[in-house]
Amino acid sequence: MSRDPHPILNPETRGLTEGPFSREEVRLANRNSGLLLEALRYDLTPFGLHYLLIHFDVPYASSADGWTLEISGMVENPLRLKLDDLKRYPQRTLRVTLECAGNGRAAIAPRAQSQPWHLEAVGTAEWTGTPLKTVLEQAGVNAYARDLVFYGKDRGFSGGIEHHYGRSLTPEQASAEDVLLAWAMNGAPLLPQHGFPLRLIVPGWYGMASVKWLDRIEVIDGPFDGFQQTGTYLYRKGEHDPGVPITMMRPRSLMIPPGIPDAYSRRRLVECGEIELFGRAWSGAGLPIKSVEVAVDGHWQLARLEPEAGQYAWRGWRFTWEARPGEHELMCRARDACGETQPLEQRFDYEGFGNNAVQRIDVTVR
Amino acid sequence: MSRDPHPILNPETRGLTEGPFSREEVRLANRNSGLLLEALRYDLTPFGLHYLLIHFDVPYASSADGWTLEISGMVENPLRLKLDDLKRYPQRTLRVTLECAGNGRAAIAPRAQSQPWHLEAVGTAEWTGTPLKTVLEQAGVNAYARDLVFYGKDRGFSGGIEHHYGRSLTPEQASAEDVLLAWAMNGAPLLPQHGFPLRLIVPGWYGMASVKWLDRIEVIDGPFDGFQQTGTYLYRKGEHDPGVPITMMRPRSLMIPPGIPDAYSRRRLVECGEIELFGRAWSGAGLPIKSVEVAVDGHWQLARLEPEAGQYAWRGWRFTWEARPGEHELMCRARDACGETQPLEQRFDYEGFGNNAVQRIDVTVR
Repeated sequence: MSRDPHPILNPETRGLTEGPFSREEVRLANRNSGLLLEALRYDLTPFGLHYLLIHFDVPYASSADGWTLEISGMVENPLRLKLDDLKRYPQRTLRVTLECAGNGRAAIAPRAQSQPWHLEAVGTAEWTGTPLKTVLEQAGVNAYARDLVFYGKDRGFSGGIEHHYGRSLTPEQASAEDVLLAWAMNGAPLLPQHGFPLRLIVPGWYGMASVKWLDRIEVIDGPFDGFQQTGTYLYRKGEHDPGVPITMMRPRSLMIPPGIPDAYSRRRLVECGEIELFGRAWSGAGLPIKSVEVAVDGHWQLARLEPEAGQYAWRGWRFTWEARPGEHELMCRARDACGETQPLEQRFDYEGFGNNAVQRIDVTVR
Repeated sequence: MSRDPHPILNPETRGLTEGPFSREEVRLANRNSGLLLEALRYDLTPFGLHYLLIHFDVPYASSADGWTLEISGMVENPLRLKLDDLKRYPQRTLRVTLECAGNGRAAIAPRAQSQPWHLEAVGTAEWTGTPLKTVLEQAGVNAYARDLVFYGKDRGFSGGIEHHYGRSLTPEQASAEDVLLAWAMNGAPLLPQHGFPLRLIVPGWYGMASVKWLDRIEVIDGPFDGFQQTGTYLYRKGEHDPGVPITMMRPRSLMIPPGIPDAYSRRRLVECGEIELFGRAWSGAGLPIKSVEVAVDGHWQLARLEPEAGQYAWRGWRFTWEARPGEHELMCRARDACGETQPLEQRFDYEGFGNNAVQRIDVTVR
């Protein structure tokens, strides 16, 4: 093939910038949707408010009738399962907080041009499905298998490479008790944009592992080198840094911005007096949150934690603030059971991943 | 009061620009969410894919227990209704396409800095509620009333003015048969972000008229001069143009972008051969769509219309395209029963309203 690559195959239209936002970034911000921070109030994120990162297009399916899940490659018994077949396995429901690995990207300078999340790429839902482990046991994964590759039905280009969205787990990771083949979210069939009819849920990990529109699992003898595994979702310091694969969520806390906003700037005005700040905190790998602190004008104090709501779900917290007239800066930060906490400033990442710097909210109290 | 206005009260942080997008615009794009164009496929937009324009914050309500609708002012019988009271009135269900008046704003040059919609601020749902007319008859609107003002519970600043979101209708507009006090969307209670527990639905109008989180109707003897009525939602040529109030939706058609996308640029790659293009078309004021045309590389041809699906709902259309390798531009335009159609180029509007210029999609066919 001697043709010049056409524009769609050219990955060089995006880059690092310190400048304002491109039309492409805004288009992505319009397509993808984040949690409205005031919806942190809900234990389970209401339908339509859970964050969504859609790499390509949402595949259309009017029903699950024509759909199957194929499990092939290095297995003793290749399987082809309909949704009703899957539902005959034992089922579990898990409450899981999912966050996009790119959450916070828009605050990093210089900034990778991609979906420009500020802080809103998070949500919590109850996912119901069959433990992946059960199905894999029936398939009989070969002892020499190196990776299990999970493919979605969604297809497109990233980095100049045409592919179905695909991510891998090692046999050990895939056999964790809590990895689900999920067909229900908050008790209802998956919405199209959340992966109907089936998605993987990998609790504790950033969202890229929880492959949507899942229709194929391939067991292979070498490391999976698909674009979404080795071409992105890596912590990297620069273009030539081989990088470190991204797995578990880093600890983060978010608060509901108090008071009322200006419609354009989103600056907040708060009435003076006793204000109950409320927020959520979570970490990855099923690690409990040990503390949340709130700073008013840089002075850190402990917040009160609500009861835990599940190993993989965010935890509520409250802080009473005696708000005095003037300009104030509010911050919050979480610390997990391993002692990991949130940095005050964003660290640079070449693609804008893993930015769990503390949230800062400027408020005017009157 | 001699204090300087603080930043939240200063409307001059936004303006007209020909340049790239500001952080504030991107924050709004992250908060508000649009229809994924591939979801034009669904007659009724699935939960979470209907467009959302939230001026301030979504008010929190764990139930409708504490909520009432107050009808006061120039009425014979002031009313205070709970949701159960409202549900005892006769009910109706209407399928309604709603579009934001700012849809298309991001393509206008120079561009008003606000929510930077491209084309996605639309959705179709079945709304169930009590006809407003019925409730107004019970309240007994005074013959000398000039405006009915509909207030939401949401509060904040716009243009430097603090207010609850509020919009008005004249008694005649408010008494139209199809204006609903709606408590259900697609058969379920309203989601928080769509106005729980009650919203106004004004079919045929742009979305700003369909006030969410409605809890107060005030009947007044003069014209309502609230910010959302007289300070914005006007077609204006410039800052000092008094403008024309925005009411009904202009005709528009949209198509599902064919083929597969590049994740960043959203450019499309299509396989050559026969392609069935699919889209939707609608207009305002309950006007039927009379035709949809599709242009491939500037050559316009008629599309085939699907059956109508209700006076206020979008209408499906199809067009068979024999796609040949190379670069192509696709466009579509609707014409309504009054002969109004879509312009090829966006017209300037000072706040970026009413841009119904034709959709253009660049595709590479291989």
